[in-house]
Amino acid sequence: MSKKPPRYIWVPLIIALISVPAGFIYVNWNKGGEGAGLYSRQWLPEAIFAYWNPKEFYQSVDTVVGEFSGEQCIECHSALTPGIVNDWKKSLHSQLSEKVFCNDCHGSNHEQLHMPTPDVCGSCHTTQHEQFQDEKRFGFPSHALAMERALDAKHFVDKPKAEVTACLQCHSVATKCDSCHTRHKFSAAEARRPEACLTCHSGPPHPDDETYFHSKHGQLYLAEGETWDWSKPLRKGNYPAPTCAYCHMDEGKHQVANKSIWKFGIKQINPLTSGNEIKRKQWINLCSDCHEADWSEDRLKEMDKERKRAWNKLYLAEKILKELRADNYLYPLAKERPPYPTDSAKDLMQYERIGFFEGQASAFYNTSAIERDYFEMWYFENLAAYKGSAHGDPSFIIKGHDAMDKSLEKIKRKAEKLHTLGEDEKDKGRRENPEKLWFNGEYTEYNREHN
Amino acid sequence: MSKKPPRYIWVPLIIALISVPAGFIYVNWNKGGEGAGLYSRQWLPEAIFAYWNPKEFYQSVDTVVGEFSGEQCIECHSALTPGIVNDWKKSLHSQLSEKVFCNDCHGSNHEQLHMPTPDVCGSCHTTQHEQFQDEKRFGFPSHALAMERALDAKHFVDKPKAEVTACLQCHSVATKCDSCHTRHKFSAAEARRPEACLTCHSGPPHPDDETYFHSKHGQLYLAEGETWDWSKPLRKGNYPAPTCAYCHMDEGKHQVANKSIWKFGIKQINPLTSGNEIKRKQWINLCSDCHEADWSEDRLKEMDKERKRAWNKLYLAEKILKELRADNYLYPLAKERPPYPTDSAKDLMQYERIGFFEGQASAFYNTSAIERDYFEMWYFENLAAYKGSAHGDPSFIIKGHDAMDKSLEKIKRKAEKLHTLGEDEKDKGRRENPEKLWFNGEYTEYNREHN
Amino acid sequence: MSKKPPRYIWVPLIIALISVPAGFIYVNWNKGGEGAGLYSRQWLPEAIFAYWNPKEFYQSVDTVVGEFSGEQCIECHSALTPGIVNDWKKSLHSQLSEKVFCNDCHGSNHEQLHMPTPDVCGSCHTTQHEQFQDEKRFGFPSHALAMERALDAKHFVDKPKAEVTACLQCHSVATKCDSCHTRHKFSAAEARRPEACLTCHSGPPHPDDETYFHSKHGQLYLAEGETWDWSKPLRKGNYPAPTCAYCHMDEGKHQVANKSIWKFGIKQINPLTSGNEIKRKQWINLCSDCHEADWSEDRLKEMDKERKRAWNKLYLAEKILKELRADNYLYPLAKERPPYPTDSAKDLMQYERIGFFEGQASAFYNTSAIERDYFEMWYFENLAAYKGSAHGDPSFIIKGHDAMDKSLEKIKRKAEKLHTLGEDEKDKGRRENPEKLWFNGEYTEYNREHN
Repeated sequence: MSKKPPRYIWVPLIIALISVPAGFIYVNWNKGGEGAGLYSRQWLPEAIFAYWNPKEFYQSVDTVVGEFSGEQCIECHSALTPGIVNDWKKSLHSQLSEKVFCNDCHGSNHEQLHMPTPDVCGSCHTTQHEQFQDEKRFGFPSHALAMERALDAKHFVDKPKAEVTACLQCHSVATKCDSCHTRHKFSAAEARRPEACLTCHSGPPHPDDETYFHSKHGQLYLAEGETWDWSKPLRKGNYPAPTCAYCHMDEGKHQVANKSIWKFGIKQINPLTSGNEIKRKQWINLCSDCHEADWSEDRLKEMDKERKRAWNKLYLAEKILKELRADNYLYPLAKERPPYPTDSAKDLMQYERIGFFEGQASAFYNTSAIERDYFEMWYFENLAAYKGSAHGDPSFIIKGHDAMDKSLEKIKRKAEKLHTLGEDEKDKGRRENPEKLWFNGEYTEYNREHN
Repeated sequence: MSKKPPRYIWVPLIIALISVPAGFIYVNWNKGGEGAGLYSRQWLPEAIFAYWNPKEFYQSVDTVVGEFSGEQCIECHSALTPGIVNDWKKSLHSQLSEKVFCNDCHGSNHEQLHMPTPDVCGSCHTTQHEQFQDEKRFGFPSHALAMERALDAKHFVDKPKAEVTACLQCHSVATKCDSCHTRHKFSAAEARRPEACLTCHSGPPHPDDETYFHSKHGQLYLAEGETWDWSKPLRKGNYPAPTCAYCHMDEGKHQVANKSIWKFGIKQINPLTSGNEIKRKQWINLCSDCHEADWSEDRLKEMDKERKRAWNKLYLAEKILKELRADNYLYPLAKERPPYPTDSAKDLMQYERIGFFEGQASAFYNTSAIERDYFEMWYFENLAAYKGSAHGDPSFIIKGHDAMDKSLEKIKRKAEKLHTLGEDEKDKGRRENPEKLWFNGEYTEYNREHN
Repeated sequence: MSKKPPRYIWVPLIIALISVPAGFIYVNWNKGGEGAGLYSRQWLPEAIFAYWNPKEFYQSVDTVVGEFSGEQCIECHSALTPGIVNDWKKSLHSQLSEKVFCNDCHGSNHEQLHMPTPDVCGSCHTTQHEQFQDEKRFGFPSHALAMERALDAKHFVDKPKAEVTACLQCHSVATKCDSCHTRHKFSAAEARRPEACLTCHSGPPHPDDETYFHSKHGQLYLAEGETWDWSKPLRKGNYPAPTCAYCHMDEGKHQVANKSIWKFGIKQINPLTSGNEIKRKQWINLCSDCHEADWSEDRLKEMDKERKRAWNKLYLAEKILKELRADNYLYPLAKERPPYPTDSAKDLMQYERIGFFEGQASAFYNTSAIERDYFEMWYFENLAAYKGSAHGDPSFIIKGHDAMDKSLEKIKRKAEKLHTLGEDEKDKGRRENPEKLWFNGEYTEYNREHN
């Protein structure tokens, strides 16, 4: 006989019945702003966002009136903007028996033009589109979530919009296909070359550009890539050396997340879980297109060791910071810091800004200087070493670890000072503390007013 | 009836009658040194300057005697220096019905050879030469004034000559044409490519190289530039993506200054003056060779915003420095600093060295450490952000602003210390002040003796 | 008549008779470890070292059994690893009437395969091999000694192995030929291009990559290198602009040490010794393949001046450090530092770690912070300026000297603080000294346990 459920089952049920719809209402209320995403009320789009996130923001120009056929588009634009017409003429779109014309993607009514979203491209290129969307399953970092996560991260609201605009230029890889296949040639051959990736994948925190071109692989590409046949698919035996896409989008697969072990180097992972062992075999299999399996395995083991070494250093720094926090020696204290965008200092359950526990989103601003030091050690220096390790560029391993060593030393020295000052000033207050807020609250205040 | 002019009109007139000729005499006296320009008495040319500023310094080798025809030059030099003869053979000069031979530019008498100045090239290439000289109308920064302003800037006298030599290697763009059209092919096609510019336009304070190659434009050039037809003029429809020259020297115009709005990012300008509005339209018109006008306008607006944001940060820093100065808390005080090259500490009207009011020329050396910090924030970090903004490289916007944020933080922290120290030491003198002269006077003294 | 030798001649003789064999025994005992070289007992090889130092560490895979002919190798590996078979097919090895097959270099017995050492390649390419080995005569730095010196340098034992692995990736240039002639094409044309060198020759302390590509030479290569005929030998008239190999391995000579004047910029040398004057003439002769001899001489003189200027700065810094040391103001004192790997704090004749007297090997770790500052000034900033000077990249001269100026300023400021603190704390001990060990002894301790 079934036992009656205990009476207190109703407590969580009632809470859920209230909080789930409340959550939906909250998200909807937020989305009611002029921007997109959870923080849309704190966040107004710039005009240029129309081109980076066309689905949310693009509005057609209305200077030209009428419906036009593809041939008519080409006729006018050959004189107006010959560059893009020339590109189209070189594209496969113009060479099909049934040509893909301008209006097939942009619409025919000139007052209601639209910028093609991935869905528009995906209406023909179904497999690629599906593979791309499938990346979302693997979470962030990923191309497919790059825009959504950017607009919905608290630290983007804290940042001046003039700078966030620079971020979105790359994050728009999620919302339009011409980040990699430049309009209007939309060439597969182009996207097979490393340059297609480097506009975004360069500099801290992801020096993929620098590390690939310093590697033997990149060197071969630079020296003789001009002579390779880029019309060939990315498959065993077709290329003398790999490019970004050859390894990360093998066989032309339009997603990069399913073979990822170290997840951008941001977290320490256990490289030997059964899931990661399967991924490792996929990598060794791929490397074996050219290399001996043993060699490939040894290289991956070296990467494991480099990562372990890096995380040893990061944990040493984190330990110091945690002790400072426990002793109340951080300046300013977590509760003295400016609140988060949707939060307020007077809230009952205020969410404390702490640089090193909360990850990327909260570590940029309004933490203490020493937490910012750790942020740079973790996000810039650690990731530089990681990319050097992953891409076969020893110079970035050396540079990254050297920088981490220096940061660790700096963090130790600062922690000692903070400790001494904390002891000294237990009664007299903290005015003479040499460590200041990384960025004053004014920084955030200013942005909220002007974003 | 006309009123008699007041008697004191004679006072300024007499001053002018004395000071104008005195100024001329002073400049002439200065030019009487062994160098060139206003500071020639403080400044001796190095042997290598003969090649960078041939008009002022080149003296022919006299190892070979006699007059030679062009054919004779070629005959000997095919064996002696085949590289340059090969280059000439590939040049248009050698393919004309009336060939331009070595002696047409260098002279026929081997004991009186000269290095061709822009005037020599300009005797045939009139339009290009006139356009180039026309840049001078727009003031500095410009190519045409690069050498003159370099030799006539005080801070070049302060600098060790071994380092100034490095500066002049690029500044010689004003005094010879082969900076862009490498001898002896003098190719227009070469100068259309970005590499022609990057030897000089790279690194701080002008990372044009880095920002162009990170942009989508640069990426396209890198990936497929080899297949473009570089013999075509820089005109709408001829190139799939722009290079430096396509945008800055559109239609092959040999000057880059007339369309410049932000003037290298060095000063804050009002981008919306009527003059700048006209330039903006020229830019939008140029971008419209490939892009929609709306898109181009939005991109330029983004740049305005980025610039405004950058200047907000710079003004915050400047305000701090001005307050320190007003409170006499800078160390050393402006009047304690080593005098300028043509000045002396005993002069009646000594010109004070202050880093942030006087601009580039005085900010390199002999200012306080905190002024030097501002100099780096302004000249390196601000300009990096500017170039990223102008060339479509978001990574440099982010890097530049991040660096400016750090500098601002550093300046604030140092200013607080200086304030505390200034208060403490009002009686006891300033020996314990931790901020030292950026470079001691000894630095300048040493250079004056050895330059 | 011959005089009898004095009796005390026996003293050094006996010492020699004991110490020489003792030295041999010591070295042998050291080599008895699992690594290679003097420090083999402190040093275990990683699996990947098998590929970088095959002579010492490679052991054949034993998954496949049997003896195979070259044709059989190709047959299987066309399916297994088509990339390397394709490379071989493009190589000269496959186009000879008597082909060089896989088994000619790797052996025929699949259970006893070996990785080819320079000796294997040298059995056919005798001249090149002899020239390469001949580099050893000129000492370190050199390619031929790169591995041996790396494994036999004390500071490699101090360093974490995960990082040393990055070092060895380049230092293996001594122990295998495919660092420059990538397997399995082994192309001479490839090695003539700059990319063959840049995988290793980039970044601090040897930004050859950066400085070459910023120079006019590099710019010409980038702009038009694709059209040059790389099958031609490196000889006068064959190339429009030089590459690394053209100047440093002129006429294809397989060693780079015999024409070296400044020896990597690490030491100040007298550029005007008779030996260096001969080398200078060789350089001028080489430059004269394209340039006027006078011009070339002037450029080299500029380099002399730049070097002198750099060493002036370095000596100023060194003087400060020597004074601190004499006054016992360094923290920690030399005798307080962790001992060297083969040394112990209790040894009778302990070898003191001092950053700036002992050169590279001891300056990385376990010195004081101010000595590390000098290390960076000398090894990174000075060498950046040197490479800029040598390769015709003015921007690196400026950057390098600017960085050295900043370091010198920092060293002065720190030295003043150390002096003040040293005076203050003569009785109370040194606990409050803000200067800490660059890396604590724990750093080395950790590595010894885990290396």
